[in-house]
Amino acid sequence: MKRRGLLIILSSPSGAGKSTLAKRLMAWDPTLRFSVSATTRAPRPGEEDGREYYFRSRAAFEKMVAEGEMLEHAEVFGNFYGSPKGPVQAAMEEGRDTLFDIDWQGGQQIRNSVLGKDVVSIFVLPPSIAELERRLRSRAQDSDEVIAGRMAKSEAEISHWAEYDYVLVNDDLDRAEADLKTILTAERMRRDRQPDLSGFVRGLNREFDAR
Amino acid sequence: MKRRGLLIILSSPSGAGKSTLAKRLMAWDPTLRFSVSATTRAPRPGEEDGREYYFRSRAAFEKMVAEGEMLEHAEVFGNFYGSPKGPVQAAMEEGRDTLFDIDWQGGQQIRNSVLGKDVVSIFVLPPSIAELERRLRSRAQDSDEVIAGRMAKSEAEISHWAEYDYVLVNDDLDRAEADLKTILTAERMRRDRQPDLSGFVRGLNREFDAR
Repeated sequence: MKRRGLLIILSSPSGAGKSTLAKRLMAWDPTLRFSVSATTRAPRPGEEDGREYYFRSRAAFEKMVAEGEMLEHAEVFGNFYGSPKGPVQAAMEEGRDTLFDIDWQGGQQIRNSVLGKDVVSIFVLPPSIAELERRLRSRAQDSDEVIAGRMAKSEAEISHWAEYDYVLVNDDLDRAEADLKTILTAERMRRDRQPDLSGFVRGLNREFDAR
Repeated sequence: MKRRGLLIILSSPSGAGKSTLAKRLMAWDPTLRFSVSATTRAPRPGEEDGREYYFRSRAAFEKMVAEGEMLEHAEVFGNFYGSPKGPVQAAMEEGRDTLFDIDWQGGQQIRNSVLGKDVVSIFVLPPSIAELERRLRSRAQDSDEVIAGRMAKSEAEISHWAEYDYVLVNDDLDRAEADLKTILTAERMRRDRQPDLSGFVRGLNREFDAR
């Protein structure tokens, strides 16, 4: 029997290091599949369709939602964001785990979906709000107004920390990376995530019978 | 708020390496407390009261059971075995995890007790029955009859593998040891096992309010 892939949900306020951690996890485990979100927002300089996001018109996005092709979706700052379902289901059936870099709204929807029992959810907290703001400002790409909006969103995001299975405080990126790997490695050792065990134990029983 | 200690249950047929693994875990984490079982069986050469077991008369053992001082107990090969409750509760309140080297009967009783939600249970399988028997015989202390009895008990023990949270196949002791450490480290990162997080997030919220 094939192992069903896990849905690994990583959430955090922006600036807490989530995207860097997601990249490091992807580099560590080449079997991991990253769930590229669809969005109606305009691409930023350097962003590429299908890499950072699938950039879609509002009409195209709404059609995907209407046809049940979104695992989760939500509106943030007037734009829609969502996770297309098809690639996730394909990965699960292949026994590959999918990594989601999404916010609490998406996390909540996936946890409450029929795929909820395959979810491992991890929330990454910043060591302090001062540090969070410093990291946001150091990107130097956004206006004060945009930063203020992001900080308000961060406060809302953090208020959902207690809905996650695991919580990390990212005060050291290497340590947080190691912790994520530990969580993922342990979750894969759960009995109900190792379908081959049944066959293995049947083999042991045949050995007992043959003695 | 103080973290409540975990109850880590390690079960396996004898000869699967469980006791060696338990010793290695204890050496790795000095905060871990080993639950010494009480038994009515006679000490074997080299065994010491309070180290391998608390050796008790049947009357003393039955008194402990009657007074609710046993977290779990069972009869195996005509002898009683059980885990005294007092030291476990003391460790939990101190925030220390307790390691139990017990069989499926004990595991089942603790999982179904009021302490069940603090349990992390791990079953260790041998790579093969031939290897299990080889390890049992290499101890060279027991008669053929005793070995046969142990092998029958092993078969019964293995039949309960699917009641455990995690399952390992011990075909390499160092690898199995690393896996156990990974499981324990991850379980300690679960949100509901980190009571200090609430206070930490209250601190972040105060920082938001002060901006």
